Amino acid sequence: MTHLLVVAHGSRQDSSNAEIRELVARLRKNCTLFASIDYAFLEIAKPSIKDALRQQIANGALDIVVLPYFLSAGRHVVTDIPEQIRQVSVDAPSIKIKIAPYLGASEKIDDLLIHLVFSSYY
Amino acid sequence: MTHLLVVAHGSRQDSSNAEIRELVARLRKNCTLFASIDYAFLEIAKPSIKDALRQQIANGALDIVVLPYFLSAGRHVVTDIPEQIRQVSVDAPSIKIKIAPYLGASEKIDDLLIHLVFSSYY
Repeated sequence: MTHLLVVAHGSRQDSSNAEIRELVARLRKNCTLFASIDYAFLEIAKPSIKDALRQQIANGALDIVVLPYFLSAGRHVVTDIPEQIRQVSVDAPSIKIKIAPYLGASEKIDDLLIHLVFSSYY
Repeated sequence: MTHLLVVAHGSRQDSSNAEIRELVARLRKNCTLFASIDYAFLEIAKPSIKDALRQQIANGALDIVVLPYFLSAGRHVVTDIPEQIRQVSVDAPSIKIKIAPYLGASEKIDDLLIHLVFSSYY
């Protein structure tokens, strides 16, 4: 089974990091499709991407998907996250680590936005 | 009818701003629930929130919803966007401008993440 790692930017404001921890807690509760679901932060907050991946591997993960919780394909998505993964892969070449599209790439976000406006506003 | 303004952070990398313009173009095409759908940027890119709101009002909008396209309830969502709106409201007190919850507040994002992993990875 695949292990999922949700990667967010990380904030100096811990309430923003807490939103990610809560998101992952909900996913763990509601989604049984993965062997494990964890979070990591690119910057500022912990755990780092490398530490989280190494922990998943230490726990027996052979197949990991990293999901960038980012809205646009900026430098973080295009360069920084792949580089962190590459550094882990060098030491664990037998582990399959793939990157899913970043959140903002999903056209399903359109419906979610409309739903958000109407569910809360009217 | 309500006018919708999608507000993103704004990036020095114009491809990130283009993602917002494309999102709004899709919404305009697929969603007929609003009198108009526009975008604005909090920083860096144009139009600014104030300019976009004033343009909507000049076009006849009486009722506007601002949707923060942000993943966490940081300073931008809690303070900066409301302050921009307040500055417009001072000069146009009869116009109703409300703020929808920011994108990351939607628990529907959970399903979207899982869908994103599976639709693209398997």
